[in-house]
Amino acid sequence: MKHIYIQDVMARDGLQIEDQFMPTEQKIDLINRLSNSGVDKIEVTSFVSPKAVPNLRDAEDVMTGIDRKDGTVYAALVPNVKGAERAVACGTDEINLVVSASETHNQKNVRRTVNESFADFQKVANHLSGTGIKINGSLATSFGCPFEGKVEDDRVLNLVEDYLELGADGITLADTTGMATPKQVNRLTTEILDRWPDVPLTLHFHNTRGMGLANVMEAIRAGAVRFDASLGGLGGCPFAPGATGNICTEDLVHMLVFMGYQMNADLDLLLAASKKLGTALGHDVPGQVVKAGKITDLHAV
Amino acid sequence: MKHIYIQDVMARDGLQIEDQFMPTEQKIDLINRLSNSGVDKIEVTSFVSPKAVPNLRDAEDVMTGIDRKDGTVYAALVPNVKGAERAVACGTDEINLVVSASETHNQKNVRRTVNESFADFQKVANHLSGTGIKINGSLATSFGCPFEGKVEDDRVLNLVEDYLELGADGITLADTTGMATPKQVNRLTTEILDRWPDVPLTLHFHNTRGMGLANVMEAIRAGAVRFDASLGGLGGCPFAPGATGNICTEDLVHMLVFMGYQMNADLDLLLAASKKLGTALGHDVPGQVVKAGKITDLHAV
Repeated sequence: MKHIYIQDVMARDGLQIEDQFMPTEQKIDLINRLSNSGVDKIEVTSFVSPKAVPNLRDAEDVMTGIDRKDGTVYAALVPNVKGAERAVACGTDEINLVVSASETHNQKNVRRTVNESFADFQKVANHLSGTGIKINGSLATSFGCPFEGKVEDDRVLNLVEDYLELGADGITLADTTGMATPKQVNRLTTEILDRWPDVPLTLHFHNTRGMGLANVMEAIRAGAVRFDASLGGLGGCPFAPGATGNICTEDLVHMLVFMGYQMNADLDLLLAASKKLGTALGHDVPGQVVKAGKITDLHAV
Repeated sequence: MKHIYIQDVMARDGLQIEDQFMPTEQKIDLINRLSNSGVDKIEVTSFVSPKAVPNLRDAEDVMTGIDRKDGTVYAALVPNVKGAERAVACGTDEINLVVSASETHNQKNVRRTVNESFADFQKVANHLSGTGIKINGSLATSFGCPFEGKVEDDRVLNLVEDYLELGADGITLADTTGMATPKQVNRLTTEILDRWPDVPLTLHFHNTRGMGLANVMEAIRAGAVRFDASLGGLGGCPFAPGATGNICTEDLVHMLVFMGYQMNADLDLLLAASKKLGTALGHDVPGQVVKAGKITDLHAV
């Protein structure tokens, strides 16, 4: 069975939309638990304006406060050169750039055209040149836009090419609002891997309409091995109140480990971290396995 | 694309474990809405002891009170001859028998050995002989038992054979507590369809650990075309408080319809029925699409 790489985005994608600011020490503790669990990459924070995302206003303190584990990639979202400077100063391993495949979503999200975003990214790439810091290029709304609807595969392929010309080391296709169907995932993943077999490709799914893990299975079938997920399933979508957001890290690992896939991430440590997360937040998280237990957790007669 | 048959079990599997008794008129209204939505089969109620399942103590009134739509199968769960007599008297189209593939679960569920259950079923089959009423044989815990753990495929295959010898017209493999993985589903579904290609096979999945729709996709890949699901995702598992239960009918139809599968069930009518269900129950249901909207429900800019 294939080796699957698990990349956790709870500390960024999850925490950014929580109602309450999570204290820095709790963030650091949870990220350290994720490191210890063996996940391969952690999106630690976002170096954006503290006004835009007040929940992540402690980006520097978090990135410099966590314990670093050898082999784990500590990534951060960066929107522009100013953010890149902050990320570099904190010793960030990898910069995650995000543009939407749909113009309308990009305007709503970052008030820029897609071309304007790429112009900013070029400056970031120039700034990072020679630093050894890797760049990952993320494409939000790759499988559909909540404003425009369908996003054509060709549009996504062209934007992947733009990222690679910019010097991106890896690509993420994000299903930002949970619009991907398994069939579509299989098709688009196959197209990308056929064209760029050597570029590390991450699939970033949301479970907004319940299809998250079905989409993972189809992506694996098409050859993908890298997945973003969020501890506890934390995260969400401002356009779908009450709906769940990111696929849940421990539910993903639970499904894969019981099918025999190899991963560095340890399910029991993730479940313990997810319980800590729920306690820290003071509310239930969407993850299922943390409530139902593993399929091997048997009940006494 | 294949035609997929959607079978709703909300009125039985969902309502039986609700905290409150749903008034008979509300049950009838919801079942009539399911009929109008075009689902192919509805498990209307259960002819068990009112003491054992007080929520379904109005079985006769519900079965005789609903509107019947041509082509829709109105089924009921029946544990013994007494239940079969009640079901026959109400004009039930199909009798659903349930035994667990695991001895321990069968003891906990119906206080009988598996052999004792089959002895009862033989009496039911004799009673139904010549009536034209169909028999469906369900195997609970086909993919794992919360007490015993692993259930061997051979065990399931033998019990399918027992059901067919009894005269069952169709078979349901139920993942009663959400223990099935996609890989296991693909393997067991393939084995059953290879051996009995002409026997209608239903897969009954729970989403207890988030794998429900991934399991559907693997079952379809293996050749299955009939699925049980519960309106609103209503249902649950007494061993997993807080976890979701049955896969959600409208989420299932939503996923399949946007991949191009043909179904008689209409997504919009199901979503409207699910909203009614939530109102009738006075609490949130686990379904996702009823909260997030369809992938084609676009937002104004």
